[in-house]
Amino acid sequence: MPLVTITAADHYPQEWYRQVADIVNEVVIETLDFPVDDRYQIIQALPAERIELQTRSGDALILQLTMRSGRSSTAKQHFYKKVAETLEQKVDVDPANLMIVITENKDADWSFGDGKAQFLV
Amino acid sequence: MPLVTITAADHYPQEWYRQVADIVNEVVIETLDFPVDDRYQIIQALPAERIELQTRSGDALILQLTMRSGRSSTAKQHFYKKVAETLEQKVDVDPANLMIVITENKDADWSFGDGKAQFLV
Amino acid sequence: MPLVTITAADHYPQEWYRQVADIVNEVVIETLDFPVDDRYQIIQALPAERIELQTRSGDALILQLTMRSGRSSTAKQHFYKKVAETLEQKVDVDPANLMIVITENKDADWSFGDGKAQFLV
Repeated sequence: MPLVTITAADHYPQEWYRQVADIVNEVVIETLDFPVDDRYQIIQALPAERIELQTRSGDALILQLTMRSGRSSTAKQHFYKKVAETLEQKVDVDPANLMIVITENKDADWSFGDGKAQFLV
Repeated sequence: MPLVTITAADHYPQEWYRQVADIVNEVVIETLDFPVDDRYQIIQALPAERIELQTRSGDALILQLTMRSGRSSTAKQHFYKKVAETLEQKVDVDPANLMIVITENKDADWSFGDGKAQFLV
Repeated sequence: MPLVTITAADHYPQEWYRQVADIVNEVVIETLDFPVDDRYQIIQALPAERIELQTRSGDALILQLTMRSGRSSTAKQHFYKKVAETLEQKVDVDPANLMIVITENKDADWSFGDGKAQFLV
């Protein structure tokens, strides 16, 4: 946990996607209190015009997280702030163009492998 | 709000995706009572055979909306009806092939930019 | 119901995606008790390095299901087990690399076509 879908424009060098995914993963684990090896990510690169963020200029970056309910609003706010700051500092993402959406579910809704529901075992 | 993912076959002209996205956005704002500049969309074009809608013939169009809980069932029904009608009238989408799924979350689950949780501020 | 998004590496033959989608659909219907024609799938193929599953070796396969709340934890566990077993047997997917995430919603959140909310009618 969580499952993170990263949606970005498709005109960046390969290395950029790796850096963004690494940063998002590090901040998720740090601010939302997940185990250090909890990395589950889907990186979706689309033509820039296929990602709409109002009328803002510049490329959009959208993070969609699915995770178990339980994290506090304060932890989520810490995550938003830290990931925006770090993406700006390290890969020059404009914080104005970073959208984040969280969807929560329950223990029974996760299988991390081997056909098991690990949170129920 | 909301974040809308539009999934469609990839064989249409570029302009078609723009028209569909514009229509969806207009109807979302009108029927679900969002501010006029609340446009957040991901447009995903896939080979037609990668989108399965039972055994229906013709291209599928799938809309996935994530939004805060609070909209009434009546408002959702109004949205379904109006978006199906408008897509049929303006871009000839068969209403039979339009699937819509909504997922709801909470105030703390949104950051629209700048690393802030705008609904909590 | 449900809407199933299948995310897999993009280097497989076309037929493989069809087989995986067929298997997932069959097991969903069998174990989660859906009508036999309830097939709604989005199949997303991405470069293998764009799908992160910890540090596991081999290709990841991620299933994301959105469905109405109501299925029991036992039914979900049955689904996880059966789909992992069947994918391994029939298309050689390593169960260790299969991740499944479920998100639940409500009756009013579905339109399967024709602009109607079928669960409310």
